[in-house]
Amino acid sequence: MAETIFSKIIRGEIPCHKVYEDEHVLAFLDVNPVSVGHTLVIPKEPAPTLDQLSDDAAAALGRALPRICRAVKTTIGVSAYNVLQNNEPLAHQAVFHVHFHIIPKADAESGLGVGWPSRPVGDDAPELAEKMRKALA
Amino acid sequence: MAETIFSKIIRGEIPCHKVYEDEHVLAFLDVNPVSVGHTLVIPKEPAPTLDQLSDDAAAALGRALPRICRAVKTTIGVSAYNVLQNNEPLAHQAVFHVHFHIIPKADAESGLGVGWPSRPVGDDAPELAEKMRKALA
Repeated sequence: MAETIFSKIIRGEIPCHKVYEDEHVLAFLDVNPVSVGHTLVIPKEPAPTLDQLSDDAAAALGRALPRICRAVKTTIGVSAYNVLQNNEPLAHQAVFHVHFHIIPKADAESGLGVGWPSRPVGDDAPELAEKMRKALA
Repeated sequence: MAETIFSKIIRGEIPCHKVYEDEHVLAFLDVNPVSVGHTLVIPKEPAPTLDQLSDDAAAALGRALPRICRAVKTTIGVSAYNVLQNNEPLAHQAVFHVHFHIIPKADAESGLGVGWPSRPVGDDAPELAEKMRKALA
């Protein structure tokens, strides 16, 4: 995997506003926040996208998320928030090391904008789900 | 916690297009997908928002996510995707049981719309990070 700015932050070669650290996980403030308190939670294991992260690193990351969300809520005093993780540039990924954004949502105008062009599920849903189950088996 | 449609799906009282299930986690197709293959990943433990989920349930959920992302990618044939988890109605939450959306992003027009009104971090960042570290200690 290519070196990223997050590898340098993990190694302490670039400073960050650190929020949390354990053996597997690091959290710090985003330097270009979408709202005040916008925090990034990353695995120390390098993986460009979530599907390439190991089970153990993903479990450690999952375990840390609720605690960090609580700290963001308490500190910022905003109870609504979005947790977003983007994969590939088309999906708005800019740093190619897995990161979860925790973005407080103080009001309808600020914070993450969510576009939601949903439609009812198609008739092919049973077939799609079966293919996914087989891929997971 | 109030009963939700997801509790009924977990108990098998309402059917779903199941993608994955283990002791702690269930994944199924969203019935109102934002794009084809839009999948929901939920903990069996009931918690309305991520900050209220137990460490163990969150770890199990985290562990399952990369595998399910791989199955969605393989099945749909789209490599870009967003993973989104919303907390409270202001942040677009509609069912009050924690759920992670996996939303394939086939092109710029379809899939999740991401509004990103970012600004450089404020001078209060060191203080904010310190408050969060204390909240986590």
